Amino acid sequence: MQLNVAQKLIQDHLVSGEMTPGEEIGLRIDQTLTQDATGTMVMLELEAMGIDEVKTEVSAQYVDHNLIQDDYRNPDDHIFLRSAAQKFGVYYSRPGNGVSHPVHMQELAIPGKTLLGSDSHTCANGCMGMLAMGAGGIDVTMAMAGEAYHVEMPRVMGVKITGELPDWVSAKDVILEMLRRHSVKGGVGKIIEYYGPGLDSLSAMDRHVIANMGAELGATATVFPSDEEVRRFMKSQGREDEWMELKADPDAEYDAHDEINLSELVPLIAKPTSPDNVVPVTEIAGEPIYQSYIGSSANPGYRDFAVASEIVKSKQIANGISFDINPTSRQLLQQLVENGHIANLLSASGRMHQAGCNGCIGMGQAPATGQNSLRTTPRNFPGRSGTQEDSVFLCSPEIAAASALTGVITDPRTLDMPCPDIQEPAAINKQEMLEAPPKDTSDIELKKGPNISTIPDFDAIEDNFDLPVLLKMGDNISTDEILAGGSRVLPYRSNIQKISTFAFEGVDKNYHNEALVKMTDGGHIVVAGHNYGQGSSREHAALAPRYLGLKVVLVKGFARIHLQNLINFGILPVTFMNEEDYERIEKEDIIEFRNIHQAIRSNEPFDVRLKKSGETIPVKHDLTKRHMDILLAGGIINWVKEKQ
Amino acid sequence: MQLNVAQKLIQDHLVSGEMTPGEEIGLRIDQTLTQDATGTMVMLELEAMGIDEVKTEVSAQYVDHNLIQDDYRNPDDHIFLRSAAQKFGVYYSRPGNGVSHPVHMQELAIPGKTLLGSDSHTCANGCMGMLAMGAGGIDVTMAMAGEAYHVEMPRVMGVKITGELPDWVSAKDVILEMLRRHSVKGGVGKIIEYYGPGLDSLSAMDRHVIANMGAELGATATVFPSDEEVRRFMKSQGREDEWMELKADPDAEYDAHDEINLSELVPLIAKPTSPDNVVPVTEIAGEPIYQSYIGSSANPGYRDFAVASEIVKSKQIANGISFDINPTSRQLLQQLVENGHIANLLSASGRMHQAGCNGCIGMGQAPATGQNSLRTTPRNFPGRSGTQEDSVFLCSPEIAAASALTGVITDPRTLDMPCPDIQEPAAINKQEMLEAPPKDTSDIELKKGPNISTIPDFDAIEDNFDLPVLLKMGDNISTDEILAGGSRVLPYRSNIQKISTFAFEGVDKNYHNEALVKMTDGGHIVVAGHNYGQGSSREHAALAPRYLGLKVVLVKGFARIHLQNLINFGILPVTFMNEEDYERIEKEDIIEFRNIHQAIRSNEPFDVRLKKSGETIPVKHDLTKRHMDILLAGGIINWVKEKQ
Repeated sequence: MQLNVAQKLIQDHLVSGEMTPGEEIGLRIDQTLTQDATGTMVMLELEAMGIDEVKTEVSAQYVDHNLIQDDYRNPDDHIFLRSAAQKFGVYYSRPGNGVSHPVHMQELAIPGKTLLGSDSHTCANGCMGMLAMGAGGIDVTMAMAGEAYHVEMPRVMGVKITGELPDWVSAKDVILEMLRRHSVKGGVGKIIEYYGPGLDSLSAMDRHVIANMGAELGATATVFPSDEEVRRFMKSQGREDEWMELKADPDAEYDAHDEINLSELVPLIAKPTSPDNVVPVTEIAGEPIYQSYIGSSANPGYRDFAVASEIVKSKQIANGISFDINPTSRQLLQQLVENGHIANLLSASGRMHQAGCNGCIGMGQAPATGQNSLRTTPRNFPGRSGTQEDSVFLCSPEIAAASALTGVITDPRTLDMPCPDIQEPAAINKQEMLEAPPKDTSDIELKKGPNISTIPDFDAIEDNFDLPVLLKMGDNISTDEILAGGSRVLPYRSNIQKISTFAFEGVDKNYHNEALVKMTDGGHIVVAGHNYGQGSSREHAALAPRYLGLKVVLVKGFARIHLQNLINFGILPVTFMNEEDYERIEKEDIIEFRNIHQAIRSNEPFDVRLKKSGETIPVKHDLTKRHMDILLAGGIINWVKEKQ
Repeated sequence: MQLNVAQKLIQDHLVSGEMTPGEEIGLRIDQTLTQDATGTMVMLELEAMGIDEVKTEVSAQYVDHNLIQDDYRNPDDHIFLRSAAQKFGVYYSRPGNGVSHPVHMQELAIPGKTLLGSDSHTCANGCMGMLAMGAGGIDVTMAMAGEAYHVEMPRVMGVKITGELPDWVSAKDVILEMLRRHSVKGGVGKIIEYYGPGLDSLSAMDRHVIANMGAELGATATVFPSDEEVRRFMKSQGREDEWMELKADPDAEYDAHDEINLSELVPLIAKPTSPDNVVPVTEIAGEPIYQSYIGSSANPGYRDFAVASEIVKSKQIANGISFDINPTSRQLLQQLVENGHIANLLSASGRMHQAGCNGCIGMGQAPATGQNSLRTTPRNFPGRSGTQEDSVFLCSPEIAAASALTGVITDPRTLDMPCPDIQEPAAINKQEMLEAPPKDTSDIELKKGPNISTIPDFDAIEDNFDLPVLLKMGDNISTDEILAGGSRVLPYRSNIQKISTFAFEGVDKNYHNEALVKMTDGGHIVVAGHNYGQGSSREHAALAPRYLGLKVVLVKGFARIHLQNLINFGILPVTFMNEEDYERIEKEDIIEFRNIHQAIRSNEPFDVRLKKSGETIPVKHDLTKRHMDILLAGGIINWVKEKQ
């Protein structure tokens, strides 16, 4: 049978299930990636499970999210993560080394391998001919413990790339075009596989840009072939020996099709407040801006900074503009320093920041009230910048730099200069970026600061219970609403008791206190509409409510990663058989659950009962056998412990 | 009469009073400097006073303190400050340009001039043959409005410098030696003037290091002569035409004397938790560290970074160490980039941060719990780093870099390498650092974000009133305890109502609520011991309690700048005639004040009465005629308004 790249990667790692779209498959995971915001919990989970050493070929812990350190908590986490990396046999990338995705690509990515990461943009490494997927932290914990990763077999959408990018158009415009066509839901349940003659003109880092924002399409993964360009990239990193070719068979087929002729693309921009709100930049050129922001894993490459540098070289940006330069890795920063680009950017009044995620995840560089911010970052959901009433546009470095010069949104094709021709340096001055774990880890102790607490034990779900409805929510509740990110909340990610005080605070400020009251009475349930749990993969959005006694979530529909997180922490996810029943439930209603163990074990719909009226509401779940085992064990930590 | 440099500067700017130590003198102020943390209030004060354009020769507004921007408040302030700078005719230095003191030195400092700044390290520019002084924000507002600055005529301490610095010893060791000898109180009421043949070997930036930490000696100012080295420095900045010679007369005398033979100095380090807790580094060499921090206005120079770069060049810092590089200005950063030093620091795993004050004022880079942090910054008061239980050591860049390599506190003389010989680049690639105000300011509007509120009106003090004692505090209460700095509180500096909620929270969490209750009943009084209001010059430590109804402060003794701030905001500062009376007062006592207008107008002690016992307590103030006018007007804003 002729296979595409995605199918080859899956077939090579399949440990259970059939490669039929929609069926659950189990995949062997070769590599894992954790960042600090999710990694502390992963390490605490490994501890709770009693794991001695990770079973993966390569696992790496990056510190890139919480770099501000306005008190002891961030640096205590860094110290904890380093001790845990040593104890469990994991590479450690210290603060200042940069964003996980480009660093992993530079240092550890290998074609033909699977990579699971506790960061939704882990998919970026699909540019290297890998099957790279973002997941909940505990899925990554499981992979590190040697368990397979389970996911619905995706459909594979082939996107044929032809032509060549015109001047002033770059990789960011390719993925913005995909978002314009397919929306933020267009990739759900799919792997996006790019192929065709146009790939020859896209560098490995260009492909990283495209693969990275596959997350914004909602795709399970994005894959590119491993070709001579990947070989060139790995050679520049001194790792040519780890390269292998991986291409689709000549007659490979795809479940869905699209085609992009690069030659026809124009500079695009995503308007607030969604990455798929894409228009040609000409439509909104002339609007004043306050900020122009370069960097993030969505434009991490040498060329992305170099092109901005060449655009502003020997000029001054407009007065009153904050031109924020966010290097994505120490290695790239050093190359940019050595080749004069940082000098250009500084001289034009650019504002240099440390290498890391920074403002892309709301850690600094928030824009002013009511002012437009142009960013090369992947997301512009409301408030993600740190400013609640923000107005963030997503664009290429070409547009961001051109607009910094003029002070208004600017089509770079209107600049009075030739399009810069950027060549990546052939040889990289290789640095010591990652700290390898010691050979003998027997005397390594976990170093826990006062903000790092052990994970509490959770009981398994009972068979019969009544639950009060503490929240009734609408459609598209994001994990940001369930548990916010940002500098106020994320520092407590290793302190369940404390972080739970922020749960659902954007929905209902009383939730935490009411949940505490109900905890001793047996917990509670929440009710919501469609697409519940969309957005960030953070598992604290399941763990914090679980700690507060959330036992069941009843909704019209779930987002994929959050559904997995709910199951992993022993919360029963159920959906309405009849969506109109949603209207019959009100806050503070009591819902009665009977014979739930049997209901979980069965794949049949079952009834729950509204206590106030005695009416029954038919509901269903969509659990696999493995899910059932996990739920009935009280979550995945208990399940692994019981297995050992 | 033969005059020293300090006397010449004072004589040349004297508008009132006699040059007799201890007498109040009024000085004409040529230049002012404001930073963003204090500058927003200065601009609001100019607005409240109805000022159209500043009356100084040069005023400059720097944005260097609040650079993190984790929401809209910091950037809204930046936009407000830029609009205010334009409206009032002030230079504006945008975020990313760096720390006010070195930037002012590079761009605007002129020998022979006076400089008043709303930052306690304004004294740094004494290195340029200026009389440079830190003051409360409202003193700077007054200077910008054309009013003289009033201060007690200081004594002048002459410090003769001989010899030449040995290898591995640098300017930081000179000021640490001064702190070792004289303590943090040793400079109170004095100007420190350095002279002698040893100055020839200290560059202008070396002198900046020494003058900067004159603040830690408690000195009113530090002055250096303006000599050929200052001329060289100004020439390198393209400003040789603004240079003038300023030296002490051959037979000039000093009120106090000291002498430092540079040749005899050794590498020194200040242990936690005071800058005068100084020992030779050999005494504590070998202690493990977590952080090594380079930068701040206390080591801002090209050589300070270059020497660190040469020490770590082609090596790797110890694993687990955070080696934080904080460039002090865009100009210096660019020079360091162009000369390969940033590449060295990055390659050794240094962590680059944006140019600004950053961790020096607790804005990021806080150390981990219980871990030692080595810093080239000027202060190590407890908690200033952002970590309450911190352990901060102050040292030279040589010690910091050597210790980063080894992971333990290290005497740089024990490194197996020759001492680097750093030459400052002769020619600076001059950049556009400051935005000059427009010629026509008539259509400039102040741009106020939602966190920027107008200053409330305050009534003048009544003649007869009773006040409850809301707080009884001990000795050495710092302005940090009265109103904390740091990222939690400072963002509200332009929002009096909100920032007042943090007043005295470290002393008594109930203060804010109790004060609110008493506000409508006529306010309250606080009581404390010696040296009340030491530390940072922030005027919010007077303004916030004033907003909450603080009318009188009764203590054993005041720190200079805070005393001035109290008067400026219409709070009556009084001291005990008999210190043992402090023991007779308890929290919640009521103190009766009668005929206070007369008492303020008189220089005689007067009695207040303890309501509970009827006992009288004799108190006194030390107000000048001008102070009395200000107090009886209800503060300096009212006083200026009445004058106009």
